[in-house]
Amino acid sequence: METKVILDCLGGDNGVMATLPAAMSALDSDKALKLVLVGDEQKIRDYKNMGEFINSGRVEVIHTTVNIEMNEHPAQAIRTKPDSSIVKGVEALKSREDCSAMVSAGSTGALLTGGFMKLGRIAGVSRPALCASLPTIDRKGVMVLDLGANMDCKPINLLHFAVMADIYAREKGLEKPRVGLLSVGAEDEKGNELTLETFKLLKESGLNFVGNIEARDVVMGKCDIVVADGFVGNVLLKTLEGTAKLFSKELKSALKGSVVGKILVAPRLLKMKKRLGEDAKGGAIFLGVKKPLLKAHGNSGPSAIATAILQASKMGAMSLSEKIGSAIAKCQVTE
Amino acid sequence: METKVILDCLGGDNGVMATLPAAMSALDSDKALKLVLVGDEQKIRDYKNMGEFINSGRVEVIHTTVNIEMNEHPAQAIRTKPDSSIVKGVEALKSREDCSAMVSAGSTGALLTGGFMKLGRIAGVSRPALCASLPTIDRKGVMVLDLGANMDCKPINLLHFAVMADIYAREKGLEKPRVGLLSVGAEDEKGNELTLETFKLLKESGLNFVGNIEARDVVMGKCDIVVADGFVGNVLLKTLEGTAKLFSKELKSALKGSVVGKILVAPRLLKMKKRLGEDAKGGAIFLGVKKPLLKAHGNSGPSAIATAILQASKMGAMSLSEKIGSAIAKCQVTE
Repeated sequence: METKVILDCLGGDNGVMATLPAAMSALDSDKALKLVLVGDEQKIRDYKNMGEFINSGRVEVIHTTVNIEMNEHPAQAIRTKPDSSIVKGVEALKSREDCSAMVSAGSTGALLTGGFMKLGRIAGVSRPALCASLPTIDRKGVMVLDLGANMDCKPINLLHFAVMADIYAREKGLEKPRVGLLSVGAEDEKGNELTLETFKLLKESGLNFVGNIEARDVVMGKCDIVVADGFVGNVLLKTLEGTAKLFSKELKSALKGSVVGKILVAPRLLKMKKRLGEDAKGGAIFLGVKKPLLKAHGNSGPSAIATAILQASKMGAMSLSEKIGSAIAKCQVTE
Repeated sequence: METKVILDCLGGDNGVMATLPAAMSALDSDKALKLVLVGDEQKIRDYKNMGEFINSGRVEVIHTTVNIEMNEHPAQAIRTKPDSSIVKGVEALKSREDCSAMVSAGSTGALLTGGFMKLGRIAGVSRPALCASLPTIDRKGVMVLDLGANMDCKPINLLHFAVMADIYAREKGLEKPRVGLLSVGAEDEKGNELTLETFKLLKESGLNFVGNIEARDVVMGKCDIVVADGFVGNVLLKTLEGTAKLFSKELKSALKGSVVGKILVAPRLLKMKKRLGEDAKGGAIFLGVKKPLLKAHGNSGPSAIATAILQASKMGAMSLSEKIGSAIAKCQVTE
């Protein structure tokens, strides 16, 4: 089956300056890829040899010049801006069978709200969740969710997060993904009300549940999936980003005055920074809505967005929704 | 008034190997310091010239060889081990007017439970909280609490955390400490049920409340005090530790094979690591109990424990309890 990826060309700090080169690079690296670009038709058509892609049918354009800005109230923006790239993109994703996934570097809130309101949840999923891969010492990465879509969660929500991520990780080739529950200690009895209740559900879930995991061990590669409520997951993600930034800055000042050190070390550090930093990630995935939405970081450059497009294309081919739906149906727990 | 610091000599990964050199070093660097050492009397007396300090009256010993291990259940250990160094230390702290603070590198849970049960709370304080200074880019540090003493919190608990930290920060010389509320975005309306309610209380509190702060900005020096519930604060602290460890390891592997780079850069990096790492901190403070308890990291070496002792000595002279008590009494909010 043909699967096209929809790309919001307007969203993100860098707009078309990042999305168009990203689209071009993704089209070049995957010759089977087809894209639906949502943005200013003239600008898209005029960009390098995009016209040829349009003529050959590999690229289609949905015209709009309306963007939802980062500081707009998500639900209100979705309601009042029907012509925005996010709304037009999500609506196309919902209505068109040939479109299988969408990528945006725009407002996370608007994308999640748009996805939730327009696409809807997979039947049985209590709450969709934002999921991304964070770096680990063994370089395999760890999937963490929820990263901020759901502020106050119930145990069943966290159970569903684990079930969804388990399916996704298996589709990505992991055999028995190790599921950890983010808590304040590795012992079973450590945690707050939410995690103590969730612990029981995960233990009975049939998943490969490895117990509580402390925040300091998330990057140590002790499990493949870490679940948390969206508030806590967001704190984890952003602490990691902040610490990486602090470390980079300290490193720079530690190397100050050492010209030789700088020359020798700088390229290696840049490479490392790239691997660990925000730009390394393709995108965060909104799991649990009917078709996958990928959120690239707002300040993503072309390479991060290209990675997200290729990731979306793979996800589109996975029939995740059906698999998640049937796994959730097998859960004995209801709200 | 004479103020002695009580030191638990048995707790911590390194026991007397760390605590005795630390005591010696603190006594050397502050000639007015007096210590009460809780541990094996013979070992203490035999350590270097500790005997002279004992004879001169600057060091006193409370003999015990019973330690509460890290993996013991805190409340149970406090109940069943009346002769443990933590229980004996906390009881001396409570009953003796000449003792003003206590330091331990032992089990955090046992120290908090012992402190809470034996010392008791300052009148009006709804919950004592664990508070430590985390590194920031401007090198001034930021006080974060609660770091794990209270799993599920109410808004009034977070308000009290802010009031206590404000007093402590003022005692340390800050004029109008900027108080931030840890949340998922800087905007007023971002957060979960707990933080949204807490936001209102902090706004009306008379504190220098600067609003919500994202986890990535905690290390950026945007405020002097950050409040969170103990689960979230613990995740923040441990994510910072884990990321620092990941970064160190990546750095090591990035420098691999570059001998010159290593030789030139290594000493600077070591210095930086020391500043950022766990060993740099003196101790976390348990604020809200009647006399200050300082918890040094379990794997602290002598220098970290010595720092904690000197910090405890300063805190002991601050009459924090009275000031916290009267600040809390002025809060109009009740549970």
